[in-house]
Amino acid sequence: MTAMARTRVHNFTISLDGFGTGKGQSRQAPFGDADLSMLKWFDGRVIHGIDKQPDIPAGPERVLSTGWGQGIGAEIMGRNKFDPTPGEFDESWQGWWGDAPPFLTPVFILTHHRRAPIEFANGTSFHFIDATPAEALVLAKEAAGGLDVRIGGGVSSLRQFLAADLVDHMHLAVVPVVLGRGERLWDGLDRLHERFDVQSVTMPSGVTHLTFTRR
Amino acid sequence: MTAMARTRVHNFTISLDGFGTGKGQSRQAPFGDADLSMLKWFDGRVIHGIDKQPDIPAGPERVLSTGWGQGIGAEIMGRNKFDPTPGEFDESWQGWWGDAPPFLTPVFILTHHRRAPIEFANGTSFHFIDATPAEALVLAKEAAGGLDVRIGGGVSSLRQFLAADLVDHMHLAVVPVVLGRGERLWDGLDRLHERFDVQSVTMPSGVTHLTFTRR
Repeated sequence: MTAMARTRVHNFTISLDGFGTGKGQSRQAPFGDADLSMLKWFDGRVIHGIDKQPDIPAGPERVLSTGWGQGIGAEIMGRNKFDPTPGEFDESWQGWWGDAPPFLTPVFILTHHRRAPIEFANGTSFHFIDATPAEALVLAKEAAGGLDVRIGGGVSSLRQFLAADLVDHMHLAVVPVVLGRGERLWDGLDRLHERFDVQSVTMPSGVTHLTFTRR
Repeated sequence: MTAMARTRVHNFTISLDGFGTGKGQSRQAPFGDADLSMLKWFDGRVIHGIDKQPDIPAGPERVLSTGWGQGIGAEIMGRNKFDPTPGEFDESWQGWWGDAPPFLTPVFILTHHRRAPIEFANGTSFHFIDATPAEALVLAKEAAGGLDVRIGGGVSSLRQFLAADLVDHMHLAVVPVVLGRGERLWDGLDRLHERFDVQSVTMPSGVTHLTFTRR
């Protein structure tokens, strides 16, 4: 018997007031004006999950973050996570990640604009699709070959997947800062907790990790 | 040497999305439509802080909540915490707490409407004042006789004290529910964390407790 493939979210970081990014996202400022307060938590342990830096202690927060890469066969991300510049694509931009994006799987990027796929030597590939969350999930599950699909964000695409009840497991990292503005994860998700078993733990870093497991 | 009296907040409960109450507060529904999801955490251990129920185990969450009553000489609360019915006071209403309100000190209630003070045999008294947060704090500190002043909420009055930078210590309890609507604590408090040392712990109940200590 094979377990059903799941749709998962990992290491998704928000402020105490629920913002995943600040205002004014750009290629220079991927988290907008939130950079200064949020990025001090993004030291590679939290954002990458799996990494090859043996000098970083395998403390509980790092181990928790490694769920990000385990058993994942594809990712779906919103346009802004790949490129916050609106409109037609500038084909010279291939994301923030250089020649070796850390995904190592097919990545489906939700956009109304057309662009040819991009393939990298490390197994990452970017596919630009104009699809609803449910349609994208069908494509991603096919590409994942029985492994799980990760919803990579940003905020507005994650919110759409949650509103459509397409998420089986979600791990959030709540950073103790009050941003006051930006893209709020919780908007329109009244009573979300009723569909999930919610668990929580605060790490010595001060970050509170929440896991939502679909009931 | 006497330590300076502080202005403190204790056991103030909000949802994951930052709401302290739902919509539609009334005498019958002190937390509005949030009652069903929030009240299951309000079992006397969290809301009262000090209580005389020896049958409740003195676990860490209960002990943390007892900060509510320690060293407090007066409370300031918003009108809605005393009576959510707007307009002139109905003098037959003396709050939700019966003949022995748990405050045991003078309580200053912020309102534009006049009403004579109410005194209870257990040391609690209600004083209705038309004052700014800073003015109310002067009155409350006088009444507290060197002890600390508690800001009792609700959400909008606490937000005003925080915006005016009048709070020295704040303890929040974040309940893992997503209300989606109501009175949000964080609105207008951008960068609040920069004025405080923030610590956090999740209890076995699933509630995450945050303490803000003014730097």
